Amino acid sequence: MWILTTYKYVGSRIPRLEGHDKVTGRRTYAVDIKLPRMVHAKILRSPLAHAIIKHIDTTKAQAYPGVVAVVIGRDIPEIPSDTGTRYEAALAVDEVLFYGQPVAAVLAEEPYIAEEALDLIEVEYEQLPAIIDPVEAAREGAPLARNSLGDVDREEARSHHVDSGPAGGEEPTSGTNIIQRLMYQRGDIKAAFQKADLIIEHEWRASMTHQGYIEPQACVVDCSPMGEFTVWCSTQGPFAVREQVAKVLGVLEVNVTVEPVEMGGGFGGKTQGVGAVLAAILSRQVKRPVKYVMSRSDDLRAANPAPQAIIRLKTGATKEGKFVAVEGSVICDVGAFPGGPLMAICNSVAGFYDVEAYDIEGLEVMTNKVSVGALRAPGQPQGAFAIESQMDMMAKELGLDPLEFRINNAAKDETVPPSGRPWGSMFYKELLEKLAETDLWKSRSHLGPNQGIGVAGGGRMSGANRGNSIVVLNRDGTASVIVGQADITGINTSYAQIAAEELGLTIEQVQVFGGSTRSAPYAGTSAGSTSLRSSGRAVQQAAQDAKEQLMLMAANVLECNKEDLVAESGIISVIGSPDKTISIQALTMQTAGFGTVFPTIVGKGNIGAGRPVPTFTAVAVKVEVDPQTGEVAILDAVCVEDVGQAINPTLVEGQIQGGLSQALGIGLSEEMLWDEKGVLLNPSLLDYKMPTALDLPNLHAELMNFGAGLNELYGAKGVGEPPIIAGAAALANAVYNAVGARVHVIPVTAERILTVLGKV
Amino acid sequence: MWILTTYKYVGSRIPRLEGHDKVTGRRTYAVDIKLPRMVHAKILRSPLAHAIIKHIDTTKAQAYPGVVAVVIGRDIPEIPSDTGTRYEAALAVDEVLFYGQPVAAVLAEEPYIAEEALDLIEVEYEQLPAIIDPVEAAREGAPLARNSLGDVDREEARSHHVDSGPAGGEEPTSGTNIIQRLMYQRGDIKAAFQKADLIIEHEWRASMTHQGYIEPQACVVDCSPMGEFTVWCSTQGPFAVREQVAKVLGVLEVNVTVEPVEMGGGFGGKTQGVGAVLAAILSRQVKRPVKYVMSRSDDLRAANPAPQAIIRLKTGATKEGKFVAVEGSVICDVGAFPGGPLMAICNSVAGFYDVEAYDIEGLEVMTNKVSVGALRAPGQPQGAFAIESQMDMMAKELGLDPLEFRINNAAKDETVPPSGRPWGSMFYKELLEKLAETDLWKSRSHLGPNQGIGVAGGGRMSGANRGNSIVVLNRDGTASVIVGQADITGINTSYAQIAAEELGLTIEQVQVFGGSTRSAPYAGTSAGSTSLRSSGRAVQQAAQDAKEQLMLMAANVLECNKEDLVAESGIISVIGSPDKTISIQALTMQTAGFGTVFPTIVGKGNIGAGRPVPTFTAVAVKVEVDPQTGEVAILDAVCVEDVGQAINPTLVEGQIQGGLSQALGIGLSEEMLWDEKGVLLNPSLLDYKMPTALDLPNLHAELMNFGAGLNELYGAKGVGEPPIIAGAAALANAVYNAVGARVHVIPVTAERILTVLGKV
Repeated sequence: MWILTTYKYVGSRIPRLEGHDKVTGRRTYAVDIKLPRMVHAKILRSPLAHAIIKHIDTTKAQAYPGVVAVVIGRDIPEIPSDTGTRYEAALAVDEVLFYGQPVAAVLAEEPYIAEEALDLIEVEYEQLPAIIDPVEAAREGAPLARNSLGDVDREEARSHHVDSGPAGGEEPTSGTNIIQRLMYQRGDIKAAFQKADLIIEHEWRASMTHQGYIEPQACVVDCSPMGEFTVWCSTQGPFAVREQVAKVLGVLEVNVTVEPVEMGGGFGGKTQGVGAVLAAILSRQVKRPVKYVMSRSDDLRAANPAPQAIIRLKTGATKEGKFVAVEGSVICDVGAFPGGPLMAICNSVAGFYDVEAYDIEGLEVMTNKVSVGALRAPGQPQGAFAIESQMDMMAKELGLDPLEFRINNAAKDETVPPSGRPWGSMFYKELLEKLAETDLWKSRSHLGPNQGIGVAGGGRMSGANRGNSIVVLNRDGTASVIVGQADITGINTSYAQIAAEELGLTIEQVQVFGGSTRSAPYAGTSAGSTSLRSSGRAVQQAAQDAKEQLMLMAANVLECNKEDLVAESGIISVIGSPDKTISIQALTMQTAGFGTVFPTIVGKGNIGAGRPVPTFTAVAVKVEVDPQTGEVAILDAVCVEDVGQAINPTLVEGQIQGGLSQALGIGLSEEMLWDEKGVLLNPSLLDYKMPTALDLPNLHAELMNFGAGLNELYGAKGVGEPPIIAGAAALANAVYNAVGARVHVIPVTAERILTVLGKV
Repeated sequence: MWILTTYKYVGSRIPRLEGHDKVTGRRTYAVDIKLPRMVHAKILRSPLAHAIIKHIDTTKAQAYPGVVAVVIGRDIPEIPSDTGTRYEAALAVDEVLFYGQPVAAVLAEEPYIAEEALDLIEVEYEQLPAIIDPVEAAREGAPLARNSLGDVDREEARSHHVDSGPAGGEEPTSGTNIIQRLMYQRGDIKAAFQKADLIIEHEWRASMTHQGYIEPQACVVDCSPMGEFTVWCSTQGPFAVREQVAKVLGVLEVNVTVEPVEMGGGFGGKTQGVGAVLAAILSRQVKRPVKYVMSRSDDLRAANPAPQAIIRLKTGATKEGKFVAVEGSVICDVGAFPGGPLMAICNSVAGFYDVEAYDIEGLEVMTNKVSVGALRAPGQPQGAFAIESQMDMMAKELGLDPLEFRINNAAKDETVPPSGRPWGSMFYKELLEKLAETDLWKSRSHLGPNQGIGVAGGGRMSGANRGNSIVVLNRDGTASVIVGQADITGINTSYAQIAAEELGLTIEQVQVFGGSTRSAPYAGTSAGSTSLRSSGRAVQQAAQDAKEQLMLMAANVLECNKEDLVAESGIISVIGSPDKTISIQALTMQTAGFGTVFPTIVGKGNIGAGRPVPTFTAVAVKVEVDPQTGEVAILDAVCVEDVGQAINPTLVEGQIQGGLSQALGIGLSEEMLWDEKGVLLNPSLLDYKMPTALDLPNLHAELMNFGAGLNELYGAKGVGEPPIIAGAAALANAVYNAVGARVHVIPVTAERILTVLGKV
């Protein structure tokens, strides 16, 4: 292998390759797919959060001109319980469990016809008590969120149990809404609290938030007469969608093809391909292609947002500023179906600092709300809000600088968080120290009136996943990089840089082709900050494999050892003999077309799941609060992240800015609001308030490379998720710093600020 | 490696996998592609065979409502001369060279609008003398088919020269229509003729014929604003089209994607993707996607049919029946642009028999007719007609049985045909002997009135080409076979059989995915009977590679040596320990999804161009001729072919029946007819007469496997082309056998029969 020591493309700010096509509307999204005979699906959703379906009369809807079929839960086969599919795959049969749950599907020639026919379906419900508040739901004797609770769901829940590390899991008894109870204990918690000079205890609430992708969930599914499925789906995980459709429909994976389409944002909310399974069922039912595009309202009501968390923390520190103990109870409200980031929340509240002891209990609780899914670093903004608010309060009480307090207590390489796995090289302390040097932090000494600066930090293990790639050298010396990974971050540009670097080609000579599941080798879901260190490493390996073959050919032609060769900008030359050169093209010309004899150069990269790598961030936010209205203006924000070697600093900065802006939305304004009956009050982007560009200042990304000793992929790390972790907490701390009163709930809305200021 | 000795799928009559979708209209052809903003191209074609374009006025056409653009030759960039592209890529600029040549393109919102606007283009021509007859064209001082002859075309012609073997090439002087002169000499021709007791000399003419694919040439090309091309094209060679579009448009191959679409027949006529280059030029010009679908008339006038050949042969034999010498001159009429199967014609007239000496001169001659291309075993039906007619005449004169005469003189393994490469194991004699045993041949002793039986034979080297494949084992234990080869014969079914065989899977668990040029590794053009022995071998190798990885995993799990393992129907078991088994699925489940650690199993097959393999045929045809009308009824026909191990006998038989039916069409009725000014008289399928199912009897295919010692791919051979070689000659011989008079031209039409019978 040729180990590269200086880089031409790695570390370069290559513009995002698909950027032009994207901003000029040339990319194809699922909604753009039109097939002959295609029908449009619209879904009738439950107006009640909990009810029994007594009767459904679809007669009038069936008769409506242009309606092709009306399908209810009883019309479709039962979905096997081992498929890992949740409500989104199906229509309710007897019991509806949340407001917005699909009850019937209308398939029509035009979307508006399907929409109109929804009103003609008559459903008779018997309303049941809806349990909405997770704290209530967790109480003994609480009404059950689901009549059948106690049987099947236990099975599903078990797969989420932690089975390693210091955690003990306990299976709750039947007849409760508690799906899972996790306990994480380390050290002697009593002894630790005895050392504490300061002990504080508070409850923190993080509201349910939505991923806020610009493109709502959408898919087209075509079931052929032979029972083969083709799926166009806005998804982060084409292979996961393939697996799910195959399992639920009972066909082989080779009979399901997920074709690549562009995705207008996912942020964890499109790891499952909400809707594709339902559309597949419907397509097989009506023997026509089915398009199922969620409206914004559909998506807010019935996709898979991030869970609400209620976190009670008791923390202790010595008067010298040593953080010694944390005791906590976490309630994660997963809504109407099991599964949520309970472990990640627990890991955040007790993982970022090097305490002597912790004792965390986590409860996964079901309520009659929409089922939750992943949102960028799932559970961590919730956990970080709690612990980082508490950190600020302790620093204040101890009369310490909040940043210095964190620096002095930051987790170390050997610190063992609740996950049970020591962090390893994570440089949290160094990031906080870097944050202290920023202009933003330094401006804390001369703040204007009603201004405040808050800090927070946190990190996570960037999960590793397997990766595959094929690199083909074409006849004209260009390289085709084939990879199955969905590109959700512009990462294809990074793959091109890696391949160009390794092959000694120009960036123009390399193209990355994200294939369909039928033509690209398997890739994991683009989630968990894994894409670079799985498929990226596979691209590197495949390019190196291709280069090995190329150099062997060149060595034959140039009559030298291949170790004496170097490739740059398409030319291979013999080191020390500047006149002995051959272009890559002159070689590849001999590998294609009639009359040539060399095999095509095809490199293969095949990476097994490697070890996860910790990636930490430190964030500071500066705000100004209007004391009369409670309105918060974000004046400045910075996120310092250890990204290792940035393959493309522009794209890495984009990831940090994106994550930070989402964090600030979670901190400032985003929240799904429910009435006491479980009706979502704000299923629109007018009322579910995401920050726009006008609401945010320039967000500063500080890229650090501490050289974590990663000997693969130039020392690059997965970077996408960590920037969302600490921003909401830093914002809340900044608001406290500005107004001197603390809000215990995110988002820190104007109303909540005025409340803690005693003004309402 | 596991060498398979008994087969489960190899040799099985698995129904063609895409068959159901094809016959139910589910497959997508180029004509089915509709893109937003797509415009339709129609071409104004020259009404003259040779002329100077004095002036083109497109004003009225441009102004016609719905017309987007009218493009003439001067509007588009000159096509580089080294691109290997012929007229089909371009519009004539100054000089038109054949009737039907593109002169202007109209692009309109609807095809009918484009068609109507063609009439509004005013072209002023200055007519030039058209040279139509190739014999005339070859004479010294003949009018030139192209004013510029003598310069550029020599360059193009040189690339067609034979540069090995016994042939001598001579570059003709400027100022003639002769593009290339080939001479093949072996042995002492004078001495050989001196040994001959019988010398006969005749001239044979094979007419220009069309491939007769059911789907005319069609493509859609979309040039993006970034200058990247996507091509949907009815082609046998997606990678060849990619190369050509890239070269002509001056972009990199990675910026051109040829997407797979179904092809409604090609037979050599779609190796170039006629039209794709022109459509690409037009799409870049108008910045919109362009659909260019040839009408049947367009296609007959201006695609790339098979050349007319005029072959004069002098052959000698001893009275004992030893064929000793052949002297010949071949004229191959390539039409208006250089390039044609001259060498293959020469190879046929002097290659099938073991003569002491031959002396063949071949001339490639230009005329003002459409430029020619490949048609299944290019040039060989023409050559076979000449030599096999002459063989029959010699046998007759010598009083010998025509089949026995052939058997006694059949080429041997060591026989060196004009190509200069000894045939190797080809079993021609054995095939003729097998033919002698057929019921058809035996019925020669009791023919009815006006009935006749004719035989003929011949073969060719099935060219080898490189092949690539990727085999991915999916999570559920199924296998995805990725291969870039265009499937023109149902060969994907054979690939599935190969992969299932090697992996021990069921045929349902394997799917073959023919990718686009961006997602599949390089494959050669599906031509020259190469697909099986290139991509088929690559599939085998990739499956074996995947199996090796799988078995290694299984050996770990089952704690045994991988050599002790056997895989069948998805189960891997330890030989001798029937209870130690694991399903392939149990292994592959551990290679995909979060939380699993094994790498995905991805096998790679990468075949360099191997050695070509000879494949021969022997054909007998039985006819009845109506002596009053000259009408020929084909009563029976058989083709015996050495196919080695048939992977799928049903598909191989289909190839043989298809080739034989085309041969009978060439022999009986197919011919492009020109008037003296070079106007094609029959540009429709009403007047260009291909045999229909009603015109043909059941065609018998006899599959022989002589075990040619091929130690790869189970001993399978490429089979597609040879069955077309001898059928026309056998038919002509049968007609002679029936009526006692010989037609020296194919097709042997009723009119020609009546002429030789002296009845007209």
